[in-house]
Amino acid sequence: MASKVRIGVLGASGYTGAELLRLLLGHPRTEIALLTAERRANHEMRDVFPQFSPYPLPKLLAIDDVDWVGAALDLVFCALPHATTQKVVRAIFAQAPAVKVVDLSADFRLSDVAVYARWYGHEHHAPELQSQAVYGLVEIYRREIRHAHLVANPGCYTTCAQLPLVPLLKAKAIEPDEIIIDAKSGMTGAGRAGKEEMIFAEVSEGFHAYGVGHHRHMAELDQEFSRAAGRDITVTFTPHLVPMNRGILATIYVRGRRGRNASELHATLTKVYAKEPFVHVLPFGQTPQTRHVRGSNMIFIGVANDRVAGRAIIISALDNLTKGASGQAVQNMNVMLGFPEPTGLSQVAMFP
Amino acid sequence: MASKVRIGVLGASGYTGAELLRLLLGHPRTEIALLTAERRANHEMRDVFPQFSPYPLPKLLAIDDVDWVGAALDLVFCALPHATTQKVVRAIFAQAPAVKVVDLSADFRLSDVAVYARWYGHEHHAPELQSQAVYGLVEIYRREIRHAHLVANPGCYTTCAQLPLVPLLKAKAIEPDEIIIDAKSGMTGAGRAGKEEMIFAEVSEGFHAYGVGHHRHMAELDQEFSRAAGRDITVTFTPHLVPMNRGILATIYVRGRRGRNASELHATLTKVYAKEPFVHVLPFGQTPQTRHVRGSNMIFIGVANDRVAGRAIIISALDNLTKGASGQAVQNMNVMLGFPEPTGLSQVAMFP
Amino acid sequence: MASKVRIGVLGASGYTGAELLRLLLGHPRTEIALLTAERRANHEMRDVFPQFSPYPLPKLLAIDDVDWVGAALDLVFCALPHATTQKVVRAIFAQAPAVKVVDLSADFRLSDVAVYARWYGHEHHAPELQSQAVYGLVEIYRREIRHAHLVANPGCYTTCAQLPLVPLLKAKAIEPDEIIIDAKSGMTGAGRAGKEEMIFAEVSEGFHAYGVGHHRHMAELDQEFSRAAGRDITVTFTPHLVPMNRGILATIYVRGRRGRNASELHATLTKVYAKEPFVHVLPFGQTPQTRHVRGSNMIFIGVANDRVAGRAIIISALDNLTKGASGQAVQNMNVMLGFPEPTGLSQVAMFP
Amino acid sequence: MASKVRIGVLGASGYTGAELLRLLLGHPRTEIALLTAERRANHEMRDVFPQFSPYPLPKLLAIDDVDWVGAALDLVFCALPHATTQKVVRAIFAQAPAVKVVDLSADFRLSDVAVYARWYGHEHHAPELQSQAVYGLVEIYRREIRHAHLVANPGCYTTCAQLPLVPLLKAKAIEPDEIIIDAKSGMTGAGRAGKEEMIFAEVSEGFHAYGVGHHRHMAELDQEFSRAAGRDITVTFTPHLVPMNRGILATIYVRGRRGRNASELHATLTKVYAKEPFVHVLPFGQTPQTRHVRGSNMIFIGVANDRVAGRAIIISALDNLTKGASGQAVQNMNVMLGFPEPTGLSQVAMFP
Repeated sequence: MASKVRIGVLGASGYTGAELLRLLLGHPRTEIALLTAERRANHEMRDVFPQFSPYPLPKLLAIDDVDWVGAALDLVFCALPHATTQKVVRAIFAQAPAVKVVDLSADFRLSDVAVYARWYGHEHHAPELQSQAVYGLVEIYRREIRHAHLVANPGCYTTCAQLPLVPLLKAKAIEPDEIIIDAKSGMTGAGRAGKEEMIFAEVSEGFHAYGVGHHRHMAELDQEFSRAAGRDITVTFTPHLVPMNRGILATIYVRGRRGRNASELHATLTKVYAKEPFVHVLPFGQTPQTRHVRGSNMIFIGVANDRVAGRAIIISALDNLTKGASGQAVQNMNVMLGFPEPTGLSQVAMFP
Repeated sequence: MASKVRIGVLGASGYTGAELLRLLLGHPRTEIALLTAERRANHEMRDVFPQFSPYPLPKLLAIDDVDWVGAALDLVFCALPHATTQKVVRAIFAQAPAVKVVDLSADFRLSDVAVYARWYGHEHHAPELQSQAVYGLVEIYRREIRHAHLVANPGCYTTCAQLPLVPLLKAKAIEPDEIIIDAKSGMTGAGRAGKEEMIFAEVSEGFHAYGVGHHRHMAELDQEFSRAAGRDITVTFTPHLVPMNRGILATIYVRGRRGRNASELHATLTKVYAKEPFVHVLPFGQTPQTRHVRGSNMIFIGVANDRVAGRAIIISALDNLTKGASGQAVQNMNVMLGFPEPTGLSQVAMFP
Repeated sequence: MASKVRIGVLGASGYTGAELLRLLLGHPRTEIALLTAERRANHEMRDVFPQFSPYPLPKLLAIDDVDWVGAALDLVFCALPHATTQKVVRAIFAQAPAVKVVDLSADFRLSDVAVYARWYGHEHHAPELQSQAVYGLVEIYRREIRHAHLVANPGCYTTCAQLPLVPLLKAKAIEPDEIIIDAKSGMTGAGRAGKEEMIFAEVSEGFHAYGVGHHRHMAELDQEFSRAAGRDITVTFTPHLVPMNRGILATIYVRGRRGRNASELHATLTKVYAKEPFVHVLPFGQTPQTRHVRGSNMIFIGVANDRVAGRAIIISALDNLTKGASGQAVQNMNVMLGFPEPTGLSQVAMFP
Repeated sequence: MASKVRIGVLGASGYTGAELLRLLLGHPRTEIALLTAERRANHEMRDVFPQFSPYPLPKLLAIDDVDWVGAALDLVFCALPHATTQKVVRAIFAQAPAVKVVDLSADFRLSDVAVYARWYGHEHHAPELQSQAVYGLVEIYRREIRHAHLVANPGCYTTCAQLPLVPLLKAKAIEPDEIIIDAKSGMTGAGRAGKEEMIFAEVSEGFHAYGVGHHRHMAELDQEFSRAAGRDITVTFTPHLVPMNRGILATIYVRGRRGRNASELHATLTKVYAKEPFVHVLPFGQTPQTRHVRGSNMIFIGVANDRVAGRAIIISALDNLTKGASGQAVQNMNVMLGFPEPTGLSQVAMFP
């Protein structure tokens, strides 16, 4: 039996933290060696997530109480709130330079720290690390991730939008200035904080858009779409909240370039993703449902004709906690540590 | 106290039928004199909808058993399945020519019977009535409805899309060829039939689009938008299903004509609807939630800037069973019978 | 047209406050003259509950800023958090002795202030008012409520359990020491505070009991059941949370006394409630669903045989925000002010 | 690597069929060699459950088209509707006597075919097989299952009630005539058939009991509880429907025998289940939530004091599709085929 690597999860009391544990407990090559949770320090994981009651796990620590040398970790997942990770990662690298990091926050996703400062309202706290960070969309940056020390795991919305659109932009198959992304997300994307607008009675039996015209994920979309297209692109993007726990569905309206029709766009995606273990392109005309990827690391992509000539409708679906966050993070870990990419990620979606 | 009119509801065992009864039982000028339900004929309303147990109501009949003369009705609501209403209405008019009809199905919505035949796959069964039918979007056709004998109550999706768009098209304020309507509906819009794809476990905890590129509501949208614009228009329209009971939210992407920005579109809508009792335009930049119109006859409309120059995002929300169906039908009745338009329709939305 | 009374609602930013407004806006004899909300003082009601956007309403005040004399109110509804009402009511009565009060909190429900202190952990702040307070279960205490100045509106769970059980205890029809109440509630019963355990992702797709063996509502049950039975009674009561917004269902297990069977219990309830406008006893063997009373002021009660000889199962259902709180409060107001009891409360349940 | 056994799943288009596939695709010792689905014969699994799109699986067959000899199966799971399995199993055994069968229906659960006939309204179709069938509650009948050829997988409700109660009855720790089981189930327990009462709008936002006083699961409870107690027992049992997909929670009211209190009952269960991989007894006073076992094969059991002297409240929770059906079926398979019992069943619950 192969030996196990030692893994730390910072921020284990949040949803992406719990999802990491769910996946890592089924991963044959990992040992969960460290867990932190600031407000729940010195509690057991079962106190914050009772589903882990039957499993032995390390006690929750505060980050400041971690002995980074003694912990002897191979890799750390940071599932901390946005803007808190930069200093933490710097401290880890200072004390334990060999440890690798996959960061699930937005802290290292924007390669230009000036853009970061504009969207997040404060200077980047670790610009020297930003330059080393690799953007962790595995299907696009697999080669870079293999040698990365610090990977910035992409956002859930942006993963759902990029996987269908980046290959089409690279192929110059669609008009870059006419992209409209109408995205819908389940509630776990908003985290576990107790806020009035997130309580059950405010969310169930209703539907609404939020952040209309100004959502932080736009910076990440702009960066990656502009890279793919080779010039600056601004897309329309509207997020909505669905009364469900998990899942993102992006309905994407595009216009084919130089007469390319929907079938041709579908053919391009089918070919690009033919061998990817976690990207599944449905037969032409079929469109996905979020429930069919729930709990799995798959993204399903469908392409259909729009009735307006020259236009196509692309719909993609993933589980925001799995392929949109913790599953993709484990996928990044597998690439960084040289494990077969699907290791520990082969769970079939749970439906119903 | 003013005398009451005698009302019949055909198809009382469906959701729009039940919603009609909920509203009519609170309407001071109506008496429910006749109820039909084919498969539940000779049962009581409480057998099919127990919420009516405390209220005295006529027994459910089969339509063929109705004595149209003896019933002495003033107005009939037809809440029957699509394509079954045409012959029924002809039969009613033949026997009781003075009765007025509000039809909630799609049977009389398309003024061109050839278009009807193309979308519905069979010849119209009552073309002579089609020419008399008035399209019942009150805010647009109030004058015609006043004198109508037969009103075709609009569809739920189309009401939600038309009320924000028709005034803008009439004012030539938006580009008619760049309209994208991304619509999301609760499950009651799909009716009460027991189908596998509608059962709880298939619907909850998930989200998906359906009818991508080819949904029958498009014919109605084409007709009304083309009328408003003064030339043929084809819009992009994608419906989705939300795991909730009631509500439609339409996220509409438009481009202003001749430099009109989002604020100007907002100003146009605010002005047009200033005195309408059931259309509420939110302050600029605010967008609506379906839960805040649940069970009411209101439509809420919001307009916001898109980050892409020249474009705007319009979001409208209504309750598909109320303003999108039975509430609008009662509103039509009020206009047809000369009652003050808000009579029996002043219920505040029920949230939470 | 009859003149209108002037009403104040303290705590208008919570769910029972919003429900009071929904009902009062449809009440022909009331004018909403005052609204308070401590944390949202100086905001408009539309800012905290957008469904009220189309309606003119007074601005939200802080209680300390109210001029109780100048407000010239006839009746005040207190929808404040538990333990905060006692001092507020004392202050109101000191300044405006003629105003009547319906309190929706638990503050005045326990007639014995020593019992209050034991369950709530602090001395009662207004014991002199407690002795004047009338327990507002209208069907049981209608006569006392007519002349009351201060009414303690019952709890939602306790209303659901008392209406079926009190008449049976009074009639000595069931064994008082073998009552088990297994109760299930929707989430609005927990209020609007943003707590982790109430957010959507913690509540949806799951079910659990809480307060097992020690829930504050027990004190109220003990008091009223003991009164009804003429001796001290302790019942078993377990509350559970259902992933839905509104509704309480109580499954009650009882044993008939002296050979009384389930049919006889049913007959007793049917007779007692024959003329009550808001209590509906279903035919023997039928049991209710919460959805069929949603948004209405009705309680539905069903009685069925248990398969264990000598036992019966009673199931009652109400909407915790309506008959379980604000609807019952309006019913109390109607009795206190001499209006016909169903005034403003005749809305049919909204299903689906 | 150990060789794989060949598995067939009859009734793969239902929910327990899909759940079997979800588990078996992650089981290292099984190969899915045969799938049947009568109404969907000759379709692919992806057509009836799109989550399986990325996985190669055999085409769906009709049972009559199966070549039982050629299929060379080691074990067959029958996930067919109740009352259809008896003849199918007889046919399988006739043609392929070496194959083992785990039946998920109720067809072989009642050892007395006369009792079966009374509850199901028809003679048992394979009484000679009934006498060989072993009741598949692994924790209770593990020894018998090891050598069984035909295992009757227990029902979901009954598993949830038996695991806490059988050890207490065997230990004569509780009064056998005062057991009340108030059970609540998610919707997948009702199967995948498209019936009006199961559609989303009829189920969401509401709660109700069903089968009050007369539910078929009672026969199974009677049989197993009577065996455990050593004399005939009849329990009170009321099932309810929760608007969620997965999960059963049983709230069980018991009275300790000879002064045994809740702590002692807890101690008995803790001891009995100390080494069971799939039964987790929570610390005394804590009670479980269904969401924390979702998708796992665990049952969580909690015991708390009732406030009524001499009584205790026991609450158990499991996932009706996993430990309540397909997970338990795989557990039975593991025992029958000599695999370590947790093989393929170690998935942590998926929450949120």
